[in-house]
Amino acid sequence: MGLKSAWLVVVFLFLGVAVAKNVNRLNVWPMPKWVSRGHNRVYMSLDFQLVTDGSKYIDGSGILKDGFTRMLDVVKVAHVVDGDLSSVDKSLIIKGIHVLIFSPDDQLQYGVAESYKLLVPSPEMPDYVHLEAQTVYGALHGLQTFSQLCHFNFTTRLIEVHMVPWTIIDQPRFSYRGLLIDTSRHYQPVPMIKKVIDSMAYAKLNVLHWHIVDIQSFPLEMPSFPKLWDGAYSVSERYTFSDAAEIVRQVILLYAQRRGINVLAELDVPGHALSWGYGYPSLWPSKDCQQPLDVSNEFTFKVIDGILSDFSKVFKFKFVHLGGDEVNTSCWTTTPHIKKWLKEHRMNGSQAYQYFVLRAQKIALSHGFEIVNWEETFNDFGNKLSRKTVVHNWLGGGVAEQVVASGLRCIVSNQDKWYLDHLDTPWEEFYKNEPLTNITNPKQQSLVLGGEVCMWGETVDGSDIEQTIWPRAAAAAERLWTPYDNLAKDPEQVAGRLAHFRCLLNQRGIAAAPLAGLGREAPIEPGSCYVQ
Amino acid sequence: MGLKSAWLVVVFLFLGVAVAKNVNRLNVWPMPKWVSRGHNRVYMSLDFQLVTDGSKYIDGSGILKDGFTRMLDVVKVAHVVDGDLSSVDKSLIIKGIHVLIFSPDDQLQYGVAESYKLLVPSPEMPDYVHLEAQTVYGALHGLQTFSQLCHFNFTTRLIEVHMVPWTIIDQPRFSYRGLLIDTSRHYQPVPMIKKVIDSMAYAKLNVLHWHIVDIQSFPLEMPSFPKLWDGAYSVSERYTFSDAAEIVRQVILLYAQRRGINVLAELDVPGHALSWGYGYPSLWPSKDCQQPLDVSNEFTFKVIDGILSDFSKVFKFKFVHLGGDEVNTSCWTTTPHIKKWLKEHRMNGSQAYQYFVLRAQKIALSHGFEIVNWEETFNDFGNKLSRKTVVHNWLGGGVAEQVVASGLRCIVSNQDKWYLDHLDTPWEEFYKNEPLTNITNPKQQSLVLGGEVCMWGETVDGSDIEQTIWPRAAAAAERLWTPYDNLAKDPEQVAGRLAHFRCLLNQRGIAAAPLAGLGREAPIEPGSCYVQ
Repeated sequence: MGLKSAWLVVVFLFLGVAVAKNVNRLNVWPMPKWVSRGHNRVYMSLDFQLVTDGSKYIDGSGILKDGFTRMLDVVKVAHVVDGDLSSVDKSLIIKGIHVLIFSPDDQLQYGVAESYKLLVPSPEMPDYVHLEAQTVYGALHGLQTFSQLCHFNFTTRLIEVHMVPWTIIDQPRFSYRGLLIDTSRHYQPVPMIKKVIDSMAYAKLNVLHWHIVDIQSFPLEMPSFPKLWDGAYSVSERYTFSDAAEIVRQVILLYAQRRGINVLAELDVPGHALSWGYGYPSLWPSKDCQQPLDVSNEFTFKVIDGILSDFSKVFKFKFVHLGGDEVNTSCWTTTPHIKKWLKEHRMNGSQAYQYFVLRAQKIALSHGFEIVNWEETFNDFGNKLSRKTVVHNWLGGGVAEQVVASGLRCIVSNQDKWYLDHLDTPWEEFYKNEPLTNITNPKQQSLVLGGEVCMWGETVDGSDIEQTIWPRAAAAAERLWTPYDNLAKDPEQVAGRLAHFRCLLNQRGIAAAPLAGLGREAPIEPGSCYVQ
Repeated sequence: MGLKSAWLVVVFLFLGVAVAKNVNRLNVWPMPKWVSRGHNRVYMSLDFQLVTDGSKYIDGSGILKDGFTRMLDVVKVAHVVDGDLSSVDKSLIIKGIHVLIFSPDDQLQYGVAESYKLLVPSPEMPDYVHLEAQTVYGALHGLQTFSQLCHFNFTTRLIEVHMVPWTIIDQPRFSYRGLLIDTSRHYQPVPMIKKVIDSMAYAKLNVLHWHIVDIQSFPLEMPSFPKLWDGAYSVSERYTFSDAAEIVRQVILLYAQRRGINVLAELDVPGHALSWGYGYPSLWPSKDCQQPLDVSNEFTFKVIDGILSDFSKVFKFKFVHLGGDEVNTSCWTTTPHIKKWLKEHRMNGSQAYQYFVLRAQKIALSHGFEIVNWEETFNDFGNKLSRKTVVHNWLGGGVAEQVVASGLRCIVSNQDKWYLDHLDTPWEEFYKNEPLTNITNPKQQSLVLGGEVCMWGETVDGSDIEQTIWPRAAAAAERLWTPYDNLAKDPEQVAGRLAHFRCLLNQRGIAAAPLAGLGREAPIEPGSCYVQ
């Protein structure tokens, strides 16, 4: 061996180490339930195929086919895949993925089976990947996981899977894994909402909680009460009813449904509803005292009924969110006609608040919804709430245990840990926040449906939503997906894997922020994505 | 008229005013050379067509067809267009656009004719829009302008053009309207670069200055010297040579060319090149003193020759950028073997710097390029530079006048006004920066090719590039496009129109930041996009 060859060996050894650092690590986010892997490498065929022989699911609406096409697209991470497979041993080329789905049903709903099993390659057909799942939505998760096993190799120009054979058996720990967006404080253009949905699927989140309306603006068209969106910020900062249908599940694109994302619509009443009155001023207690919605006015409940009727046509998720938080009843107790009404009905402000929430619940139930309410309703009159209520915790820790002890269900979003607009909460805190804290009884544990990170919109518009959500939402996503015993006790143990996931999001066109620094902070100096 | 009808009239009047505020304003950015408009409204047919009868341009590569398809896509701003045209007077429906292009040539190059004329509707075919241009690239600008005349009306659910008839005659003031991106300080994933190119086309910028390599990393594959990209941050923070071809003008997508965007590649030598040495350490003066590139080593110039040969295969723009800025020669004058070489060649450090730059220029010329160099080369030895040099100003104002007085050409990027990484420079300063300051002689004026805003990457990665570029780059884009006399003397006069453009960018999925606040600052409170 001459000097030159020796030098080349050194270079290749060095390169080998550098490659290994990035790809020969278990870089799947969120961490699956069970993983085993080997030491070999296979190559993805340039015309990688989807086959579904034996599936009971016929994919009439193309949900699986579209998921497969998106998977093929993202594994390229926009590189030109022009490597030469002719010199590769044929036995190392994977021709496609065999997807076996046991249920013919493609209804997306709360509690749909999301488990899957992924074998790379298939023991029975070694030139195929094997993916099986109860439902197409489990299969979509399996495709997401498979996409994270694939790497574009810059030397071979091929998509490779290292460390085969892989066996991954996976299912979520919680069935409700949510992200809230707020389109009232700032309008979010439709492409931004669609990108949020895309990126949620990458992290296996499954509920987009759409806080549509609040004090500041009413952007959504309501066919039953067409003047409500007069409360939009401007004529163009609006969503038509068709836009909403398109975002949720319209026949043409079924945007969210196709990605396995449920949409939970929120109608926050009676507070946070000031913007309704621009179209219908009689919903305000008075011109000078504009919230909460006028409890004494039958028209108020007619409008709620109309909206929930409209909602039921588009939002097919079994839950609707009725808000109920932060209600200050002083406009009720000081406005003469309401003051009079309260007296006639022998109510004080807080009794009227309870009356309002319970009446709104009844309307929602009449439209076939179960209900989510913010925790103040539970804190104030929990024993009066419909038993179909899910209590949405936000004020702080310790609420979930009280809710489930009372027999109601709960979603955890304690603001000190899971509010994305709290820019000073770092990803480590998002990771460590445990929904089952102090809940040991298995029956009570099962009443905790899951949790949700909340992207309130006061300082979030089309310019900064992605980097405020990511990577911190991903930290919570692993907490909600991965079995408790697989979670890191110290978040630093997963920092490298999370950094890898945030870089992957960037490579897929999602503007996830660095891990270092607080929420959405820019990188502070030059450097590799993987160490920032 | 009953009371109810009177009330409806009031409502419609109110709505009419609200609509007018947004759409009945001349909201085109950048402002065209000449505009006249009327008071009527027309509706875009749901199957709006492209016709090209009479064009000399046959669109064999589909550049026009793709531009037309993208225009149709962006005018919807992701809304569902499902209005009913059957009740609209047929004479008010526009069936398509007739595009007349006089040149058969679709070579994109510096100085290509970019003018166009747009008539909505066509006086001769009143159910069509008329667009004519010398080249397909002028026609693409016309399509961009037309897209900004279109509005999705949330009431009719149709795409409408208000204030017809429109006559717009337009051409750019400067032929070089650039934006620099820096992929060395942080890697920019390919989808981010493509989105930057998309958004540049919206603002009629036409040169993407790709500062590929710098001290920190060498992300691009160079077939002639394949170890150069060992200087990448990691194995995945890289572009293959095919990726570069794809970004610039690859046969499959021709990404930038299809949008009328030239790509100016930069090879910054002899400083800012430390990362080259990870693959080829002999390019460093020594292991401990790693820059500038070793002037005494013939291999240095062989590598430059190889890179420029590679560049010439992909980057077809007539210019290449050779850098030449911020060269500290102390490693040359202190490293023994270079010190010896300098003595033998009777050079001091600054003479060796000149020798290096001029030799690199000769190599570039031998590959058919004209040259852009940063201004230090002009400041130090301007009279020695090739007459094919374009001097790129950056240190401050006042340089352009000296450059053009010497008979050389100039591009203006004075850092105090046009560096996007200077977050404390507000959009108003970007708008006011005049490339022809103190240059009155028309011949000298013509030597100012234009200007460029620079997005240096120290704190810019995939998470924040869009909002750091926009809207400030748009302010400069109008300065570079619009005739001087049409420019606002006081930027506040155009603030509303620029806000409209930034909201349009958001609606098209580009994360442009609010106008208020400094570079990329988040909105500080809830509110409409149009007033932030």
